[in-house]
Amino acid sequence: MEVTRKNFSSVLPEVEKAINEADFLSVDTEFSGLHASNSFHISPLDTPEERYHKLRKGSSDFLVFQVGLCTFCYDKENSTYEAKPFNFYVFPKPYSRAAPDCRFLCQSSSIDFLASQGFDFNKVFKEGIPYLTSTQESELRDFLEERHKQYTQFSSPAFVTPDSGAEAVTTKGPIEIPEEHKEFIEGICNSIQEFLDKEGEESLSLPSCNGFVRKLIYQTVRQRFQSRVHLGAKTNEKKQRLIVVTRIKSEDEMKKKELEKQSTELAELEDAVGFSKVIRLISQSGKLVVGHNMFMDLVHLLHRFCSKLPENYQEFKAMAKCVFPKILDTKLMANTTPCKELLPSSVLGDLLKHIYSPPFKKPEVVIPENFPRYDIDDSNLHEAAYDAYITGICFTGMSSFLGGLQKPPLSYVPPDAPVVKPFTNKLFLMRVADVPYLDLEGDDVLPSRDHVFHITFPKEWKASDLYQLFSPFGNINITWLDDISAYVSLYKRDQSSTVMSTLCKRDARYKILTYELFKNGFKDKESRKRSHAPESTEEEPKKKKPLNVESVTPPMPEENGNKAEEENMAADSTSEQQPNEQKMFEVPAW
Amino acid sequence: MEVTRKNFSSVLPEVEKAINEADFLSVDTEFSGLHASNSFHISPLDTPEERYHKLRKGSSDFLVFQVGLCTFCYDKENSTYEAKPFNFYVFPKPYSRAAPDCRFLCQSSSIDFLASQGFDFNKVFKEGIPYLTSTQESELRDFLEERHKQYTQFSSPAFVTPDSGAEAVTTKGPIEIPEEHKEFIEGICNSIQEFLDKEGEESLSLPSCNGFVRKLIYQTVRQRFQSRVHLGAKTNEKKQRLIVVTRIKSEDEMKKKELEKQSTELAELEDAVGFSKVIRLISQSGKLVVGHNMFMDLVHLLHRFCSKLPENYQEFKAMAKCVFPKILDTKLMANTTPCKELLPSSVLGDLLKHIYSPPFKKPEVVIPENFPRYDIDDSNLHEAAYDAYITGICFTGMSSFLGGLQKPPLSYVPPDAPVVKPFTNKLFLMRVADVPYLDLEGDDVLPSRDHVFHITFPKEWKASDLYQLFSPFGNINITWLDDISAYVSLYKRDQSSTVMSTLCKRDARYKILTYELFKNGFKDKESRKRSHAPESTEEEPKKKKPLNVESVTPPMPEENGNKAEEENMAADSTSEQQPNEQKMFEVPAW
Repeated sequence: MEVTRKNFSSVLPEVEKAINEADFLSVDTEFSGLHASNSFHISPLDTPEERYHKLRKGSSDFLVFQVGLCTFCYDKENSTYEAKPFNFYVFPKPYSRAAPDCRFLCQSSSIDFLASQGFDFNKVFKEGIPYLTSTQESELRDFLEERHKQYTQFSSPAFVTPDSGAEAVTTKGPIEIPEEHKEFIEGICNSIQEFLDKEGEESLSLPSCNGFVRKLIYQTVRQRFQSRVHLGAKTNEKKQRLIVVTRIKSEDEMKKKELEKQSTELAELEDAVGFSKVIRLISQSGKLVVGHNMFMDLVHLLHRFCSKLPENYQEFKAMAKCVFPKILDTKLMANTTPCKELLPSSVLGDLLKHIYSPPFKKPEVVIPENFPRYDIDDSNLHEAAYDAYITGICFTGMSSFLGGLQKPPLSYVPPDAPVVKPFTNKLFLMRVADVPYLDLEGDDVLPSRDHVFHITFPKEWKASDLYQLFSPFGNINITWLDDISAYVSLYKRDQSSTVMSTLCKRDARYKILTYELFKNGFKDKESRKRSHAPESTEEEPKKKKPLNVESVTPPMPEENGNKAEEENMAADSTSEQQPNEQKMFEVPAW
Repeated sequence: MEVTRKNFSSVLPEVEKAINEADFLSVDTEFSGLHASNSFHISPLDTPEERYHKLRKGSSDFLVFQVGLCTFCYDKENSTYEAKPFNFYVFPKPYSRAAPDCRFLCQSSSIDFLASQGFDFNKVFKEGIPYLTSTQESELRDFLEERHKQYTQFSSPAFVTPDSGAEAVTTKGPIEIPEEHKEFIEGICNSIQEFLDKEGEESLSLPSCNGFVRKLIYQTVRQRFQSRVHLGAKTNEKKQRLIVVTRIKSEDEMKKKELEKQSTELAELEDAVGFSKVIRLISQSGKLVVGHNMFMDLVHLLHRFCSKLPENYQEFKAMAKCVFPKILDTKLMANTTPCKELLPSSVLGDLLKHIYSPPFKKPEVVIPENFPRYDIDDSNLHEAAYDAYITGICFTGMSSFLGGLQKPPLSYVPPDAPVVKPFTNKLFLMRVADVPYLDLEGDDVLPSRDHVFHITFPKEWKASDLYQLFSPFGNINITWLDDISAYVSLYKRDQSSTVMSTLCKRDARYKILTYELFKNGFKDKESRKRSHAPESTEEEPKKKKPLNVESVTPPMPEENGNKAEEENMAADSTSEQQPNEQKMFEVPAW
C-alpha cells in the first residue's frame, strides 16, 4: 500500500493495527546516496566499530526517500502468513518557518540508479510524509509552549511574531520603526481603524510584506489597538505571508481566539511528527524487525526518525537496542552454516529464488485484498515495500528450514524460537573477511590480526614489490589503503612472529608496523582529536562465543562469479554494491 | 523549448544558430538550495568580496537543476525582437564508471518551493543533460588517451580493465588469482576455448561478475588467448557489467576493433561534455549576457560548467570576465536612477509589469513558431527559460527608456550603447546598503564605514541596552551578528570620532572595536588560516567612479510593504528571498 502525505493520517490506524497483530515485521529503505566521499568506502579489514564510524560520518547526511514496512501475521489454521506491505514516501518538508530546514546530500550515481528503476522523485518531494526526531519535536513543543505563555501575558506588548524561529523566542526588545517604513505602518494602522469603524467585514487581510515589516506591524498594532483586534498569520496561495486582522469584542473572545490558535499550532506540530510515529509504533511493539543487510537501513532509521547518531559506538548499540529491541539480518542468516552451504548467493533477489526451491520450502504468504498483489519477480526490486516483503519471506523460508532440521522437526518456527535466537541483534558486515557480525547485545567478536601488517612505501611501488618483500613468508594478500600504504596479510600465520624482526631493519624506503601497533597509534591520534568519543572496546580484542549454529565464514563468496545486482549503482543496501567499488578490489582480501 | 538528454544533440545546432544570430542573451537558473547553513546568510554589511566567499563556501555544493537561456535578435525593419527561450534540464549523471560521481546538497525548503511551483524532478533526474567542467573533461581525455596507448602496446599483458577509474591507470601489477576464484576463472577459460573451437557463434557473453573477478578474467584471458580473442565491456539491461568475447583472425582485425572501441569511447566523452557546450558557445559568442539578480546564477554557471570556483576573489573576477566578457544585471539597472524612482519594486515579476506601463514602453517581442508561446503572467515564473525571457524583456524595456532620455532620443538601443555601458560587468548585491555593486572589471567601490562599530556584549543584552549605550551619539542601527555581537551604525556620522574614546573605558561587560579594526583583526586570523588566498583589495578602501547615471541607493526599499514573492522559499535568485531570512531583519539596516 502506497502511503504519502495525502493518505498518511487515514492509513496510520491501519498501520498500527497491522503492527500490533503481526508476529514479526520487516523493513527496507531507499536512500539518496551511499558514501559522502570515497574515503568512507568500506574495507575488508574494518572492525565493526570502524564500520559504524564510516557509516555515521559518510552516510548519515544522505536522505531516506522511501521506507518499506511489511507486517507478517501467521495463520496457524491454514499454515500461511498474511503479509501487509506498506510503502512510505518520506520527505522532511519544513512544516512551519520555525521548523528545521534540513540540508541533505545526494549522490549522482545513486539518484541515477533510482531513476533507472523508475523511482518517482516527484512523489517524494511533493507528497513525502514529513517527520521529526524526538529532539526536534520536543524543541518545537517547548518553543510553542513558551510562545503561548507569552501570549497569555498579553497585557504587555509582545514582540514575537508567529513565524519567527525557535531561536528567536527571546527577541532583543522593541524595534524602532525606521524612517522608510513609517508611512507604510501608519497606512496599515489607518486601514485597521477604518475596518473597526465600519463594522461590516469580519476580517481584514493586510497586504503581504516581509518578516521584518510584519514584526513592525505586530508591534505597532498591539500597542495601539491592544484588546480590540486579534492578529493571525496566513499564507496565501502564492506562498506569501499575510497578517489577518479580526475584530474582537471582549478580553474573553480574545482569549478564546488565542486558545483556538494555540491548539491549531499544537495539532500542526503533531502532524509534523508524521512518519516518526510509525517508527515509534514499531519500537513500542517490541516485535522482531527483520532486514536484509540492514546495517545502513538501521543507521538511517535511527538518525532520521529518532535522534542524531551518537559519536560513541557503545551509545549507538544502546540506542539501537532501545529503539528496536529485537532485530534480525537475513543476510547474516544466509551467510551462516547450514544455510550458507545451500545458497550460492545471498543477494536479496537471488536469495528469494533459492528459498523457493528445495531443500527450502516455499513459504505460503497471502496479501489481503486492499494491498498491491506483488508478483514475485525482479520488476519490483528496489521498491522499499517489495524488498521488505521478500526479506520477510526469506526469513520465514530460512527459519522453517532450520526448524525442519530440529529433532523432532518444527512445523512452525515462531520469531522467538531457539533456532532463530542466535541471529537476533547481530548485523551482517559487508565484505568484512574475519569478523562474523556486529553484535548489538554485547562486545563484538574480534579476531586476532597478528598476521596483518601495515606498510608505507614509495608511490612507485606495485604489488610485485610487496610480493617480493614478503616472499620469505609465503603467499600474502594486500589490502590497499592508498598509493603509498597497504595492509599485508600472511596466508601462513605461523610466519607472523618473524616478519618484524626480518623486515624492520632492511630498508629505509618503507615503514612497517604490526596491525595492533598501527591501530593503536592511529587511535591515539584520533582520541586526542575527540577525547569524548572513547573507542576503548577495540583496544583489547576479546574472545566471545561465535554463533552456535557454526561460525560465520567470510562473505567473500559474495564477490564470486555470476551474481545478479553485484554491479548496480545502488541506492539501497539490498543491492549490496557500492558505486565504483571495484577499485577496492584490485587486490583480493584474503 | 524544452531541452533534455533526449533531444539535446538534435537541438544543439539550433541553440548555436540562435546564439550566433542574437543581439544579446539572457539567462536564469534554478538550484537545489541556497545556503548550506545559516552562517552563510547574507548580511547588509557584507563587502563584495565577503559576499563572494559566502556564495562560494555556502552555495556551490548545491546543484543547478535547470538553466534558462533566451536569445534576443532585433528586427530593425519591424522594430521587434525575436526571442528564443530554451529550457535546459541538467543533471551530472556519471557517464561511465571512470567519470566523477558528484555529491550535491539539497535544501528542503528550496525543494519544497520548487515542488510547489510544479517543478518536474523526474525530468531532471531521468532526462537531465549531463555536463563536465573543462578540468573534468581534460582529465578524462588524458585518462582515455593513456589507456589507448596501453592497448597499443598490447603484446605485453595489460592489467587495466575498461571500467577502472581514472586513478587506476597505473595499477599495481599482476594479481595472483585467489584460491576461491581459480575454479571459476578456469571455467571461463574453458568456455572461451570451446567457443574458439566451435567456430559457430560470433561472440560469447561471459556471465556477469564483479569488477575484481572481471579484472582476473582480463588478465588470464589475455595471457592465454592473446591474439585470438578480443574482450569488450558491455552493460546489460539489468545494469550488470559483462565481458563480451569476440573471435579475431589477425593482428590487424584486433587493431581495427581496438580503434573502433577507442573512437566510441571518445565519442561518449564528447557526449558527456553535454550542457557545458552551451556555456562554451555563449562564452565564445562574446555577446552580452543579461540576468536578473544574477550573482548566484553566475557563480553556479561557472562552478558547474566551467571550472571549480577560485578561492581568490580577484581570480574569480578574472574567471568570470574570461567566460562571460559582457554581463548585465537588470536588478542593478532597476535599482539605479533614473529607473529606480519609477519602479516601486525590482522583484522580477513586478518589474515586468512596470516595464509594460508608462513611462516605459512595452517592448515588441515575438517568439517563433516552434517555441512555447509564453503568456506574460505569473504562472510560468520560476521556470528558468521564462524567467530568462522576461529578464530580457525588462532589459530592453529599461534600455529603451534610457535611450529615450537621450538628446536626440534613440529609437533603438543596441546592447553596446553608451547608456547601457555603465551597467555592464557589475553585479547587484542583495540587501547590501552602502556598496552599489560588485565590479567585475576593476576594484570595488568600498564606502567609508567609520560610523560602524563592532560590539560584543552579554547574552542578556537586548536592543534597548545598545540604544542606551549609544544614546550620546543619536540614533543607531543594529545589525545583529549573533546573540552576543552586532554592528552598530550611527545615523549621525559626525559623531563617529568620539565613540571609541567615550565607550572604551566605561564598562568591562562589553568590548567595542571600530569596523576597520575588527575587520583587520578578523582578516588577520583568516589569512593565517589560508595564506594562499590573499584578500588584500579589501584592506585599503579605494575611491572609484560611481555609475555615471547616478549613484545606486541602498536596495532597502526592496524590503518594503506589499512586494510579491518576497516571502518565497525560493530556489532561484529571481525571487530574491532566502528561506527564514526574516531573522536577519529583526533590526533594520541603516
